[in-house]
Amino acid sequence: MKELKDRNIPYKIYLTEDEMPKYWYNVRADMTNKPAPLLNPATLQPMTAEELGGVFCAELVKQELDDTTAYFEIPEDIRNFYKMYRPSPLVRAYCLEEQLQTPAKIYYKFEGNNTSGSHKLNSAIAQAYYAKQQGLKGVTTETGAGQWGTALSMACAYLGLDCKVFMVKCSYEQKPFRREVMRTYGADVTPSPSMTTEVGRKILAEFPETTGSLGCAISEAVEAATTRDGYRYVLGSVLNQVLLHQSVIGLETQTALEKYGIKPDIIIGCAGGGSNLGGLISPFVGQMLRGEANYRVIAVEPASCPSLTRGKFRYDFCDTGMICPMAKMYTLGSGFIPSANHAGGLRYHGMSGIVSQLYHDGYLEARSVEQTSVFAAAEQFARCEGILPAPESSHAIRVAIDEAVKCRETGEAKTIVFGLTGTGYFDMVAYGKYNDGDMGDQIPTDADLEKGFATIPSFPGNE
Amino acid sequence: MKELKDRNIPYKIYLTEDEMPKYWYNVRADMTNKPAPLLNPATLQPMTAEELGGVFCAELVKQELDDTTAYFEIPEDIRNFYKMYRPSPLVRAYCLEEQLQTPAKIYYKFEGNNTSGSHKLNSAIAQAYYAKQQGLKGVTTETGAGQWGTALSMACAYLGLDCKVFMVKCSYEQKPFRREVMRTYGADVTPSPSMTTEVGRKILAEFPETTGSLGCAISEAVEAATTRDGYRYVLGSVLNQVLLHQSVIGLETQTALEKYGIKPDIIIGCAGGGSNLGGLISPFVGQMLRGEANYRVIAVEPASCPSLTRGKFRYDFCDTGMICPMAKMYTLGSGFIPSANHAGGLRYHGMSGIVSQLYHDGYLEARSVEQTSVFAAAEQFARCEGILPAPESSHAIRVAIDEAVKCRETGEAKTIVFGLTGTGYFDMVAYGKYNDGDMGDQIPTDADLEKGFATIPSFPGNE
Repeated sequence: MKELKDRNIPYKIYLTEDEMPKYWYNVRADMTNKPAPLLNPATLQPMTAEELGGVFCAELVKQELDDTTAYFEIPEDIRNFYKMYRPSPLVRAYCLEEQLQTPAKIYYKFEGNNTSGSHKLNSAIAQAYYAKQQGLKGVTTETGAGQWGTALSMACAYLGLDCKVFMVKCSYEQKPFRREVMRTYGADVTPSPSMTTEVGRKILAEFPETTGSLGCAISEAVEAATTRDGYRYVLGSVLNQVLLHQSVIGLETQTALEKYGIKPDIIIGCAGGGSNLGGLISPFVGQMLRGEANYRVIAVEPASCPSLTRGKFRYDFCDTGMICPMAKMYTLGSGFIPSANHAGGLRYHGMSGIVSQLYHDGYLEARSVEQTSVFAAAEQFARCEGILPAPESSHAIRVAIDEAVKCRETGEAKTIVFGLTGTGYFDMVAYGKYNDGDMGDQIPTDADLEKGFATIPSFPGNE
Repeated sequence: MKELKDRNIPYKIYLTEDEMPKYWYNVRADMTNKPAPLLNPATLQPMTAEELGGVFCAELVKQELDDTTAYFEIPEDIRNFYKMYRPSPLVRAYCLEEQLQTPAKIYYKFEGNNTSGSHKLNSAIAQAYYAKQQGLKGVTTETGAGQWGTALSMACAYLGLDCKVFMVKCSYEQKPFRREVMRTYGADVTPSPSMTTEVGRKILAEFPETTGSLGCAISEAVEAATTRDGYRYVLGSVLNQVLLHQSVIGLETQTALEKYGIKPDIIIGCAGGGSNLGGLISPFVGQMLRGEANYRVIAVEPASCPSLTRGKFRYDFCDTGMICPMAKMYTLGSGFIPSANHAGGLRYHGMSGIVSQLYHDGYLEARSVEQTSVFAAAEQFARCEGILPAPESSHAIRVAIDEAVKCRETGEAKTIVFGLTGTGYFDMVAYGKYNDGDMGDQIPTDADLEKGFATIPSFPGNE
């Protein structure tokens, strides 16, 4: 019925538990140009461990600041938790290849087989673990689409930690099921902005009709952590520590490929804050940095929130309230808000400092794609590969399909690996719009971008 | 942090692709008392292959009627499809065991790692495959909670078959996201009862306010298939053919257990129409029938729809419209409707003929559980094992926990295996009610049951 290529490689490559990584890989150790340090916005001096310790757990601060240690041991308790849903499969997309009639060989690392529905759990359990180890009562965080909040709720339920989630108000209202999942895991979920924090009250006073933003929810979560005894703030992307934990994705991918003697030509990941992309590519870029191998690495972002392709490489605030440290990154400005029409996630104004530096130094390309074409790729993928992908993940699918089609045209049998970060079960409103032909794209004009750029702080050396 | 038992057994046992079953197992071949044949309601005679061929695909009719062939080869195309989401893991519930402080060893076969969210895909692809092989244009079916409809939509999208789904109206309205998933896979979804069929119009004329029932949707789907050229009807549970396909669950479980030398004492499955339970237990009950082994097998059903524990073993209609063949089974009567308060699935009035006969002959026990206690088990399981279970699957979790707690009391280190049929991502309305303490139970009174029993047909030999 289906004409499939010789299946000498399994449909799904699963590592054994023994083959799972015992160390996270810190790509900064191999970078010549290190990511710039976080700055204290008041002093414009690098944040010290002590200053960061008021916001983050001590062990995570160490990981955040250490740019020389290449490997961090994964504590046994975290490895045991990983075994609940890892190793994740590296899947050979035989059916997609057949449908595209491409000589390319396509693989995807699927991170969606867990209740959070994405890769976010890899860092959530690590951050919750260190909080527990430090004897804290709980952690606070923000969530937009809800994957990170769900992941953190699961990790906290497992460890018996309190979990306070500030959920962007429009998501809180549009995604009651995501909220209910977090509640089932015992988390306390507050729509943001809220009256429970000073920064929330200030934003509400100024913009009473606001439906919130990720940057604003971050400000509230940080305030809630720093004004309570026994709490720290945790973040699901952007930070160095998060990319460190997410390296488990790339390390597993590398082991699985090596097990079957496969050498990838192109590695593709979607990029919002950069945690999945950074985690997937770190070990491969590490080889490039050490001169051991060469790959084409492609970061895919939405055309409606194009921080890499149209942003500026500057120090900027990570949150709307401007209470967090400043990071040097590709940014659209903390005041930038993507079109309300944008449904596909990846709406953060900035990008991980590591990913930004690697991009700046030419280790990866960036491409922006429009959401109608992203959902078309998602539908095509779902129908032949069976998995209903998250809109975020579908950005990577779009470019993987585009590259495979190019191979059909050139006859090259390239090996493409992409990250399938998660499932779209909680994104059916967006799928419904697409099914109804009612999705549309909205790309910011240069004038829109200028408004965002105007919110980037200006000081000597930051232009 | 967590005190875990020696982990000499992996957290998840995955078979290799080579170890996956190449044959389905037909438990009827080993049964001394065969399930009674389907009857033509007009003649009260056993349905012939020819009569059934008007409704079902030819190959499926053969499978339905064959009660002597023990093994049916799984066609290679179906085995390739299975590889997209199978083998499913057999998971050792280390964390649940630790939380219960039980000496019992608990395993669960997790069928939820696919977009349909349940085991239903195992039979959906088989039925769609035979329809395609027969050169049909498409298939029709009904769906309640939506898992079966989603599974069939996925299978049809993969094979390029048209798929018409009649979705029980209350589910159509309460579960717009399920509907949207089916649409994403290209299915045509109609709320039932509808004006598109004669039986639908008749039911609407009589009960204009009805929110539909599974039995009514079956009637519409059968009519839609039999009045269209190139269409057949397919059903997701109850039938012998479905249990045959679902035996892949039990066969994989058996291979995984044997690989590690594990002998189960108790095997537990939830039971609605019986497809998951029948598939899980078939190979084990086969051993019992052949005198090779002995197990305690427990079917778990909701107290609000107690076909095994409080039903009658009679010939009955499978649908409300009474246009389908009659089956001999444990039934509450085709007119029985569970309390509107019932949220947990498993609301079919009857039970698979195979499961019914095995129960009648003492090869399995049945237990009914109330939904508040089912959701309590679901929450407990989610928080320690990480997976948010479907309400249906949680019936089995409830009894697995109860049995493990008994082991704690007696000190016996029994080995418990249960079927975790799927995930609850589309059941958050029900979880929300539970989270709000607003769930409640409603067990039918004897008078309620009598009303249902009155709809069981009366003829000589059927009392």
